[in-house]
Formats: sequence, C-alpha cells, structure tokens
Amino acid sequence: MATDLQLKETIPSLTDRLVATYVEDCTIHHLDHEPLPSRLKVIRVLDHLFEVIFPGFGRRENLHMSNVQYYVGGLLVELHDDLTRQIALALRLDPKFANCSTQDLERKGQQVAVDFLNTIPDLRCMLALDVHAAYDGDPASTGTTETILCYPSVEAVCIYRLAHELFRRGVPLIPRIMTEYAHSKTGIDIHPGATIGRSFFIDHGTGVVIGATCEIGDYVKLYQGVTLGALSFPKDDEGKLIRDEKRHPTLEDHVVVYANATVLGGETVVGHHSVVGSSVWLMDSVDPYTLVTLEKPKLRIREGYQSSATKGAGV
Amino acid sequence: MATDLQLKETIPSLTDRLVATYVEDCTIHHLDHEPLPSRLKVIRVLDHLFEVIFPGFGRRENLHMSNVQYYVGGLLVELHDDLTRQIALALRLDPKFANCSTQDLERKGQQVAVDFLNTIPDLRCMLALDVHAAYDGDPASTGTTETILCYPSVEAVCIYRLAHELFRRGVPLIPRIMTEYAHSKTGIDIHPGATIGRSFFIDHGTGVVIGATCEIGDYVKLYQGVTLGALSFPKDDEGKLIRDEKRHPTLEDHVVVYANATVLGGETVVGHHSVVGSSVWLMDSVDPYTLVTLEKPKLRIREGYQSSATKGAGV
Amino acid sequence: MATDLQLKETIPSLTDRLVATYVEDCTIHHLDHEPLPSRLKVIRVLDHLFEVIFPGFGRRENLHMSNVQYYVGGLLVELHDDLTRQIALALRLDPKFANCSTQDLERKGQQVAVDFLNTIPDLRCMLALDVHAAYDGDPASTGTTETILCYPSVEAVCIYRLAHELFRRGVPLIPRIMTEYAHSKTGIDIHPGATIGRSFFIDHGTGVVIGATCEIGDYVKLYQGVTLGALSFPKDDEGKLIRDEKRHPTLEDHVVVYANATVLGGETVVGHHSVVGSSVWLMDSVDPYTLVTLEKPKLRIREGYQSSATKGAGV
Repeated sequence: MATDLQLKETIPSLTDRLVATYVEDCTIHHLDHEPLPSRLKVIRVLDHLFEVIFPGFGRRENLHMSNVQYYVGGLLVELHDDLTRQIALALRLDPKFANCSTQDLERKGQQVAVDFLNTIPDLRCMLALDVHAAYDGDPASTGTTETILCYPSVEAVCIYRLAHELFRRGVPLIPRIMTEYAHSKTGIDIHPGATIGRSFFIDHGTGVVIGATCEIGDYVKLYQGVTLGALSFPKDDEGKLIRDEKRHPTLEDHVVVYANATVLGGETVVGHHSVVGSSVWLMDSVDPYTLVTLEKPKLRIREGYQSSATKGAGV
Repeated sequence: MATDLQLKETIPSLTDRLVATYVEDCTIHHLDHEPLPSRLKVIRVLDHLFEVIFPGFGRRENLHMSNVQYYVGGLLVELHDDLTRQIALALRLDPKFANCSTQDLERKGQQVAVDFLNTIPDLRCMLALDVHAAYDGDPASTGTTETILCYPSVEAVCIYRLAHELFRRGVPLIPRIMTEYAHSKTGIDIHPGATIGRSFFIDHGTGVVIGATCEIGDYVKLYQGVTLGALSFPKDDEGKLIRDEKRHPTLEDHVVVYANATVLGGETVVGHHSVVGSSVWLMDSVDPYTLVTLEKPKLRIREGYQSSATKGAGV
Repeated sequence: MATDLQLKETIPSLTDRLVATYVEDCTIHHLDHEPLPSRLKVIRVLDHLFEVIFPGFGRRENLHMSNVQYYVGGLLVELHDDLTRQIALALRLDPKFANCSTQDLERKGQQVAVDFLNTIPDLRCMLALDVHAAYDGDPASTGTTETILCYPSVEAVCIYRLAHELFRRGVPLIPRIMTEYAHSKTGIDIHPGATIGRSFFIDHGTGVVIGATCEIGDYVKLYQGVTLGALSFPKDDEGKLIRDEKRHPTLEDHVVVYANATVLGGETVVGHHSVVGSSVWLMDSVDPYTLVTLEKPKLRIREGYQSSATKGAGV
C-alpha cells in the first residue's frame, strides 16, 4: 500500500493515550484477572440447549432414536461444564458473594447449573405447548415443523423460558444476555423476570416489549408491536429510580392483544378471556370477557388526490 | 475446576430422563433417518444466490467481466446440488408425496431446482427495478450502490422474491425459512405467499408485516411499522381455523402507505395512486386517487411541565 | 444422488444467460478491477473497535492492566491498515476523486483513518456517558456492566457515533454500512448524518428511526418505536427529490419521547425539558417544559364478550 510510514508510526502514541483513558474511567472496561461471563459462550450454550430440546431441528442431521442418547449425553456434559463456569463468573458480580473464593463460586455455579439442566425435561413439555399454540394461533401455519424451524415466537419464548429459570435462581447477567440475544434475532424483547403461563404465542413479533414485572396467564396471544410497559417510574427521596416494584401489567388467561396495542401500568389487570384490539392504548383494568377496541377512527378521506403532491411521511 | 464429581455424575441419569421425553412427545423432535431441510444450508443457498444476483457486492472481491463466468458457473453448480437435496427433503414433508421413494423425490427436487435457477435472469431485472425504487424513494440515498449494500428493503425483497418462486412451485418449508431469515436480519416480515409487483420499496422497514394473501401492485412504497394484516380468522364448525382464504388486503399500483399505518382485511382494496397516512388504521376499501389521513390528532399540551415529575411511558 | 445428469448439464447455458444480464444492466453488479468496500471487513473493523473501546467486554478474556496495552496496540495497527484500505475504496466512489490515482486515494484514506482513530479516546468519554444514561434511565437495569453487555441502545449508539465521525469526514458508504449493521442487530435505525448530544439513551429500541437531518440535544431519552421523520419530500422542477435539506425534527436537551410516538418535519422543534407521550403524533413545535399527550383515547368497551367469536387482528 502507498501509505505514509510516518503517519502509521503515530499509532503507538495513540495506544498510550487510549490506555490512559482506561485508567481514568474504570466503568466501561473490565480489566481484571477474572473475566466477565462471555456473550459468545452464553450463545453457544443456547445453541446446545436448542439441540437437546428440539433434536433433529438444529445443526446435527441424521439423529434417530438409536443414536440420539450419545449425542444428547455428550452435549449435556458440555453444558454442565460451560454453565458451571459461566454461572460462577456471573455470581462473582453479585455483591452478596464478594468474599467468596473462586472455588466456592464454582461449586455454587455447578449446583445452579445442575438444577437448571434438570428442569429441561419439564421445560420441553412447556415448549411443546408453545409450539402447538403457534400452530393453533396462525392460519398461515402449515404445521408444528414449520413453527419450530421458522417462527420467531418459538425461538424467543424458548430462550425466555430458559433465561427465566436462571433468573429465578438468582444468576446475574446471563439471563439478560440470553433474552437480548433473542431480541436481536427476533425483535421480541421479553425481560427474563416476567412470568408467562402455558401455551403462549406471539405472532410476527417484531417490536413486542414485555417488561420485567409482567404477569401473563395461560393461553395468551400477542401480535407484533405490543408493549406491556410501565406507566410511571417512581423515584425515591433522592430522585433515584425505585427498581423493585411491579410496574408492568397483568394479563389473565386466554387474553388476546392485537397488533401495536399498548397496555401500561403495574396495577392494570386485563381480565381473562378479554381481547384488546389493534392500536388500543390501555391504562386501566378491564373485567373478564371484555372487548376493548378503538372507537372507529376518524379519518379524513380526500378523493381525487394527485400523488404528484409532495407531502410525505406524516401526510 | 473445583466442581463436585458426584454432582456431575448425575448427568447420565438426566440424559435418560430427557431421552424418555422424546419417546413421549414426538411433535417437537425429528428423530428420523431422513433429515429435515437444514436452516444452515438454506441460508448458505441464499448467500450463493446473492453472489450470482449482485456479483461484486458480496463476499467475493475482484470480480470482473473476464473472470465472473467461472465464479458464477461454479456457484450455480453448487446451488443445483444443494437446492436439489434441500427441496427433496422438503417435498418429503408434503403428504401428497408420502409414498414416493427417495430417488423419486430427488428427481422431483432437481426438476424444481433447475426450474427455479432458470428464473434468476428475469428475477435480476425485477430486482434492478426494486434497487432503483429504493433510490428514487428515499432522499437520504446516495445511489444504487448504497441501496444494494445497505438497504434492508433490498435484502428483504430479494429474499422474498426468491422464496416466492419456490412457494409457487409448491415447495414446503424452505420459502418460509428464507423469509424468516430475512425477517430476523431486517425486521421486515413478508410471507412468501404474498404477491408483489414491480418497483417495490420499503423504507426503514422494521416492524413491517405483509400477510400471506396480500396482493400488491407495481410502484408501491411502504414505510416502517406498516401492517397489511387480517381482520378476522374464520373458523370451521369444529372451531378450527380456516387456512386457505384471502385474509389480507390488496394494494393497487402506485399506493404509498406511511409509517405505522395498519390496513386490514381480505376484502379491503386500496385503489391505485392512493396514499394512506402515518398511523392510519384502515379496514375499508378506498377509491383510486384517495388520500386517507388521521384527523388532526387531539393532543393535550400542558406548558410549564416540570420533568422532575415521575410519570412515565404512558404519560 | 439420483439426479438426472442431462438436466444438470443445462447449468452452463444458464450461466451464459445469467452473465449476459450482467452486460445488459450494469447498475446492480460491480464487476471492476477495484472492489467496493467490503461489508464483512467493515463489520470486522467494528468488532475490533468494540474491543478497544470496551476492553474486557468483548471476545478477548483475561485482559488486565499489565497486558491490555499489547492487545490494544496490535488491534490499532490492524485497524489502521483495514480502515486505510476500506476508506480508500469508498473514496473512489466520490465523483470528486474520479481522477485520483490509487496511491493518492490510499494516502487520503490513511489520513482519514488516522484522524478517525485519534478521536477514539474522546469518543470513549462520550460512550461512558451513554452507558450511564442507560443505567440511569431504566429501572430494570442492574448496573453498567449489564448495559454494556446487553443493551441494544449502547451497541446502536456506539456504532452510530463511530459512523458519524466517518460521515463528518466525507467518507462515502462505510458509515451507512455501519449503521445498517446496527439496525439489523438492534432494530434501531439511526442515520449516520444525524447529530446527537451527550448522555443519549433509547430503551428497548426496536423500530426507532432517526432521520439523516435530525438534531438531538443532551440527555435525551427515546423509547421503542419512536420515529423522528420527514413530513414531506420536496421535489425539484423535474419532479426529482431534493436531497440536501433539513427534513427531520430537532429535539432540545432533556427531551423524553415515549413509545411509538412520531415527530415529523424539519421545522419541528421540541423545546428542552419537554415530554412527548406514548403514541403521540406531532408535527408542530412545542415550547420548552411542555408535556404533550394523547387525549385520553376513546375506547369501546364491551363486557360479556365471548372469545369464541372470530373477529381478529383489527377487532
């Protein structure tokens, strides 16, 4: 390349200046002999979990009843080792364990990893219900094979259910790494702290937000763009956000919320068998068996419009 | 690691319990000597198709007129082999072919693969129009090089057009794997069954949903968050969804739909040269040359607001 | 495979037909001895930049004060070389440099690359403020470690700030490749031309669009689905879009815009300390300290609804 060597030789002094900024502000680096949990390794864990939950749907082909035990057994040993290590690194971030030795943290990490892995047989039953809910809820679906291989809902809800099991066991950071990975892949943002019942389905899904303190019953269906959010963020006397309060709504069993509707507030309860229509904006509780829709929207309809006019996005 | 060997030795019994769940429920595994079509291989097919459609824009550099034939010829042979195999695996899932031999399915897969590959020269002309529509439709665009390399619309529409060609030929599963891959990368969810005319552009794109039975004319432009969806899901006498009916709207030529508008229903027709404004929610047909906008929204404007107040997301 | 050799032997003639389409239309290929900037290499540059900006949070573990200098120094040399090359390739696309030699472009590319790399120490301070804004703005956040590792806002804003530095220096194409990569990963679409002040946070983020000519002050917070867009696209006498005009709004310091609100127009100014409520649709300027909300929406609430009814997405 026809580059200027003198200019390139300024890189070492830039390196010095940059490293000096690490010393000044220690909040946005992690320079420490104990690493953080690794996003890449957590994603690898999720890939392995998908293989053991939906065998034959993932990367390994030619699995059948006579060889699946060896394959799954090998993956579970890897998952045991990787989860033990990653959970131990995450627990180190909990101030409660500040004085624990590395060995103590690894023992505790292993205990949580084994407990977690032992939930997978039951989780598979939950996930089978979610897979069927996706088929039953979408007239465009051709079968459960399609919903497992293609539907963002199945991927996001599967990752949420796994993350929630770690969240319930007090593991820092890893549950959120998992659900944000799902968010990135699917556009569906479910906080691992939310609680969600059986047979849950989100159609299309892009833009859905389910807040940390949501409570969702069984047989609930959401569409794209639905926000189950907070109405207000209480602050304490010093003006700091209060972080441990129910801020997000409750949806009872058999509720349906259509596209781009917004339901807000920790005291808002949508009663069972209720339906919230598309684009509704709801901040109050409704009884069971209620249908909430927008008043027929007032539209301005001008005929004979010439599209050579230049009005744009907000017309 | 300081882990407890006894605890680790519980993994084999967990493996047994997990494998037992495969026997109980056979809907969420595919343990079979014939594999499913592979998502990873379908994505590799899409990467190859991008290389032959937009040569010089993808992973291979230094392509020019004197070497492109060798490169493209090699890729087409690989595409022939990979598509033949993947389509054959997909056709096996169609009950109509339940009694076909593997050889018959591969022959049929090859025929579809070759038919499909032969559409690419014409598809390139369609895609060139889409690329130009993106440039013509966005004042922030600097040229077609940028629209091909950067615009989610070009990626999503290209993948949709390829998937639609396979969908039309009755290939199960693979078209949806393709469009959901595009959905994951772009936030644009186009069902492979939709029909879309020439010179189509979606600006920004995140959150767009185009249902399976939509019919879209030529020179149509959509913005982010637009839903072209279903108004109701008819059920049969047993309460099961009816799956083969036009449920989604028709947009005639030269229609523009601005951000976050929602158009619903299989009988809804937006006449040619009409404009649907931002956030409009439309369930009725409109004539050609119609401009539909929200009534100027009624806003509550309170001046002198102190943002130290704590009201939040729903204010 | 049981495929038909004769059918496979049609591939060479398809190759000929396809290559013929490259000759006919030269707008959607780049067959040239000088390649385009490479998306894959630009993404690799972003990965390296993340490593030097947030050391210890990325792929390399076990970084500490005594070894980080070697690691970062090595990455900066690679960044120098890769950026020099990619910027030189991008500059070639600027008609202004049409007559420059490859050597001149590489020298100019190197100059821009070195200038850009020298902004990183200051950019790190900006990004530290964004990281803290994410923690301060979200009651569900457990700390800055979580915001760096998990929050789409931090990833999208970091990539935007890097891209904006290249955009300001007149580098074609690469800034947009960068921000569209962020858009794909996070659902947040920030044009590299926008200007954004300090301590910026976008919660959840999916569906956010920030147009090319937006001006955003300090301490601004946005939620998912917010559009800061254009109201109209002026055209010139020939009906062509005018591409260099302020089309997008200005948000002054300390503004908050809640979920799915839309603010449109190049002359629209949201005064400092104002709040725009969820789902508001605003096309006019508002004074400082203003609270803009929807009128309490008129909802139709029907009790005793039987969900066996079949009305769907638009109920």
